[in-house]
Amino acid sequence: MKIGDLDTPALVVDLDRLERNLDRVAAYAARHSLALRPHTKTHKTPEIARMQLDRGAVGLTVAKTTEAEPLLDAEPREILIAYPIWGEAKLRRTIELSRRVRVIVALDSRETADRLSEASAAAGSLIEILVEADVGMRRCGLPPGDGLVELAQHVEGLPGLRLRGVMFYPGHFWAETPEGPELLQRLNADVARIRKDFDAEGLPLEIVSGGSTPTLFHSHEISGMTEIRPGTYVFCDRMQVGAGVCGWEDCAATVLTTVVSTPEASRALIDGGSKSFSSDALPRSDEGGFGRILEAPTARFHSMNEEHGYLDLSNSGVRLRIGDRLRIIPNHVCVAVNMHEKMYAIRGDEVEAVWDVRGRGKLQ
Amino acid sequence: MKIGDLDTPALVVDLDRLERNLDRVAAYAARHSLALRPHTKTHKTPEIARMQLDRGAVGLTVAKTTEAEPLLDAEPREILIAYPIWGEAKLRRTIELSRRVRVIVALDSRETADRLSEASAAAGSLIEILVEADVGMRRCGLPPGDGLVELAQHVEGLPGLRLRGVMFYPGHFWAETPEGPELLQRLNADVARIRKDFDAEGLPLEIVSGGSTPTLFHSHEISGMTEIRPGTYVFCDRMQVGAGVCGWEDCAATVLTTVVSTPEASRALIDGGSKSFSSDALPRSDEGGFGRILEAPTARFHSMNEEHGYLDLSNSGVRLRIGDRLRIIPNHVCVAVNMHEKMYAIRGDEVEAVWDVRGRGKLQ
Repeated sequence: MKIGDLDTPALVVDLDRLERNLDRVAAYAARHSLALRPHTKTHKTPEIARMQLDRGAVGLTVAKTTEAEPLLDAEPREILIAYPIWGEAKLRRTIELSRRVRVIVALDSRETADRLSEASAAAGSLIEILVEADVGMRRCGLPPGDGLVELAQHVEGLPGLRLRGVMFYPGHFWAETPEGPELLQRLNADVARIRKDFDAEGLPLEIVSGGSTPTLFHSHEISGMTEIRPGTYVFCDRMQVGAGVCGWEDCAATVLTTVVSTPEASRALIDGGSKSFSSDALPRSDEGGFGRILEAPTARFHSMNEEHGYLDLSNSGVRLRIGDRLRIIPNHVCVAVNMHEKMYAIRGDEVEAVWDVRGRGKLQ
Repeated sequence: MKIGDLDTPALVVDLDRLERNLDRVAAYAARHSLALRPHTKTHKTPEIARMQLDRGAVGLTVAKTTEAEPLLDAEPREILIAYPIWGEAKLRRTIELSRRVRVIVALDSRETADRLSEASAAAGSLIEILVEADVGMRRCGLPPGDGLVELAQHVEGLPGLRLRGVMFYPGHFWAETPEGPELLQRLNADVARIRKDFDAEGLPLEIVSGGSTPTLFHSHEISGMTEIRPGTYVFCDRMQVGAGVCGWEDCAATVLTTVVSTPEASRALIDGGSKSFSSDALPRSDEGGFGRILEAPTARFHSMNEEHGYLDLSNSGVRLRIGDRLRIIPNHVCVAVNMHEKMYAIRGDEVEAVWDVRGRGKLQ
């Protein structure tokens, strides 16, 4: 099958670029003795998870137990659920998962630790724990300091759980910005503080897990971090190019679309909208828009509804006709992948494989 | 099963409100002798399509052939595909669909008409056509005038097709705004122009299809329109409340979520983000945010990532604890429904039915 045979819109992955991205980050992690535990939310696909493990990843990261289940086919040694588990159904699934693979859960409260401990102990399981620190994103996590240490001590005392260390997400540290150096300094101070506190209390700190794609190639500058959990690096996207982590030539995933209407020469409508790209906007940018068109980078993909994308061709030098096919790099590839049931893996013009995005949806 | 038994996040539909919304619009359409051809993209669910047909809808509207297929279980007399069909696979599916139900397709170019005609004639089918007019949205469609008339004439001469009239989408006509009256006047002028042109050329104009939810209860003020295609009215959402079409008490669909982290008293994180709500923002509003929380309308649901929603509770008078469950009206319910595999239909606290959202996804 050729790419020209695909019905549109379709999620297309360039295997040469994907493999290059995987190799580059595996080599970087190895060079700096950082464990690589990639976040699989970007691809949600066991075939790509397998490629990551084959290149030396120590395990996989997921956001949900339901995302983890299909990835077991990739045979990871361990899975980190980077998400606080709450509620009967989720606890049950976590315990079931722990019978099939070593499970690590990140959490940031006594309440979640207590419930998980009860469920784990009752089932005779052992769930490993990272306590979550907030290093500035103001999402989940407790700031480095007494609260974090007390939570770690609390976890240490609970049956059915075993503390392995700390997790944080430095996604606000966009290295290639004027604030980059200062943020890096603060991040180092936070990690040093955590290390000092845990050492003083004799708490285990086998894993200090950080690292996101925006910070990726600065990870070795954060002393005391033992592992990274980048996700987006497999495909890259418009956001990561904006963050300076990669170039357009590294973007491996595009949405293949067809022009379906050209009411005026300066306007074209494509058969992909928010149901194919998601409506995630581009932060830290004056550019706006919803994607970069490989065949027409000067055209502006300025708005969408569910089914259509709207292209402004004025002053772009671009003319499009009904039936023209365009490949578009999305703003945020993780949410775009989540919209697609299948991923078409190409090499050149040849469709080498069709993969089910088995971890898509998975709300609970 | 009670609502308290549901795992979160979950899409919950209040049946009393849904039925009231369906009754109100069916009565409005009947009172003004407007045919009702609801756009099913909002619910994507045959069970609700059936409720619409039982209340007198003349047929159903869909965006894709793949969205139409599961809705055949609701036994509509006819289905309007409000989307230009292009490409072999889509043509084939359209023809197959036309063997099971009367199919109407909207289109805005000779190219799409020619291809559809070839496919239809070759299969011995008859596809009905609405030519699409652009009345100001600048999406698909040709402006009222010569181009539109020529396209209609072209369709009239093609085998395998039968012209039934005109379709347009007046989604820019937000009645309850200062520009409302002027937009209504322009819309009336456009429809009058189309009627005059088609009459002069002896072109059939059995159907003049307009009407969206934002314009819903002003549809009878647009003379010469024969039918309406509202979608969002079944559930309403934050956007439609903003447009003045409905009140909070009409919002029938909410996303049920659980508080999973409260790192500070002024902040809470819920287990629903852009994968449950979509990242559609609120237009025409200074309010921003991603939803209205039934249990805490003063709390600000200010941002999201894929899995988490972030609530700012400062100055809200609200305190939340881990495990609290919140029901949230989304900004744009159509895209939120598209994220969910199941819909839980409740009456009071009782889950009366669990419906598969069978038309979700369906990119091609």
